[in-house]
Amino acid sequence: MHIFYTPDITQNTYTLNEEESKHCVRVLRLPIGSQVNLVDGKGGFYTAEIISDNPKKVNLSILQVQREFHKRNHYLHIAVAPTKNIDRIEWFLEKATELGIDEITPIITDRSERRIVKEDRLNKVITSAIKQSIKAYHPKLNEAISYDAFLKLPFEGDKLIAHCIDHEDKKYISELVAPHQKYLILIGPEGDFTSKEVNLALNKGYKPLTLGDNRLRTETAALSVCFEINYLNR
Amino acid sequence: MHIFYTPDITQNTYTLNEEESKHCVRVLRLPIGSQVNLVDGKGGFYTAEIISDNPKKVNLSILQVQREFHKRNHYLHIAVAPTKNIDRIEWFLEKATELGIDEITPIITDRSERRIVKEDRLNKVITSAIKQSIKAYHPKLNEAISYDAFLKLPFEGDKLIAHCIDHEDKKYISELVAPHQKYLILIGPEGDFTSKEVNLALNKGYKPLTLGDNRLRTETAALSVCFEINYLNR
Repeated sequence: MHIFYTPDITQNTYTLNEEESKHCVRVLRLPIGSQVNLVDGKGGFYTAEIISDNPKKVNLSILQVQREFHKRNHYLHIAVAPTKNIDRIEWFLEKATELGIDEITPIITDRSERRIVKEDRLNKVITSAIKQSIKAYHPKLNEAISYDAFLKLPFEGDKLIAHCIDHEDKKYISELVAPHQKYLILIGPEGDFTSKEVNLALNKGYKPLTLGDNRLRTETAALSVCFEINYLNR
Repeated sequence: MHIFYTPDITQNTYTLNEEESKHCVRVLRLPIGSQVNLVDGKGGFYTAEIISDNPKKVNLSILQVQREFHKRNHYLHIAVAPTKNIDRIEWFLEKATELGIDEITPIITDRSERRIVKEDRLNKVITSAIKQSIKAYHPKLNEAISYDAFLKLPFEGDKLIAHCIDHEDKKYISELVAPHQKYLILIGPEGDFTSKEVNLALNKGYKPLTLGDNRLRTETAALSVCFEINYLNR
């Protein structure tokens, strides 16, 4: 199955951009009449046929569309401090997209060594992952924002914070949330959130979360949360 | 906390090898009298004191030892087809070690593009992950073996195979196993197991497993299994 990402599709025909046209004709060597699939990132999954094979602009005719393709039964937003080594966050984005996530926000915390994030590059990782794992919904990657500013944003749903500071009230996700809800979960940087940051979140209504006894890297903790939420909504 | 991996520790003193001695003295700049921790990979977690800071052979005196440190309550063996891009398997090994795994076997299947694995390099990834995540048990990495030969090996416990071929009997891990058991789970290559390989496993008593609707990469499927088994044994 050959999948193209076509967020701007509106008609019953579509023209691939130059890069994808070249890929389609020169690399995949797909002739006129071949069927390909398109995803628009908003839940639309299309079956289309190649009607012209110009390597600079391949024209496609839409044969069929499925709306709300594999629509998710919950909403997961993970706000995570970007790792010093950006590969680790790119890896997290690829895996979270495969497993199922709706929204990601890089948050800049007191102990964040990395304070700058190139969203374009990270979005390319997500787009390639939705094509690879056949997802019609494109997870939303927000611009990096300071932790304090992020906490001021409204969110209607379960709000959790994962941290490693001893706290008698910490519970597992499975003890804190019900299925089919909206979830917002905060994951700290290498070195964890500061206790000031944790208290700030608790005062904003976030519930403290434990991921168990394992000392997990930032990206592993974030993926572990993604696993558990999807598991509970299976 | 500074952790060193000391699989050959036997006495109440220990001498770090040249590489780790140099790291200890030149990089970490730890003086005589400093306390460090050692893990032997067999469940021993040691507290030791530096008694000589020769950058070629640092001598340590063992102050305290905890046996069966964070002993696991189940046994997980994952046999996985190595990915064409070895980084993906290295990534899996690091993450599985963080989350908890006991044994890994690279299996060479009909559709495996990669048929050679450098166990030394992969073991270094595991060792660095146990130090980073403070694990006293070192997961066992077996040499790569052909799929057919692997299926002939004995295993007392739950045997499962994850595959993408339509099969009405496929169930989730949570429906197939109980906690606190021994589990052996097979994960196929990019392109999946062949139906011949799947049938071979079913005839050997493996139960067919589904990981849900998501199309997961090999290493994501393997980690997903690792997460679910640890979750069920939490």
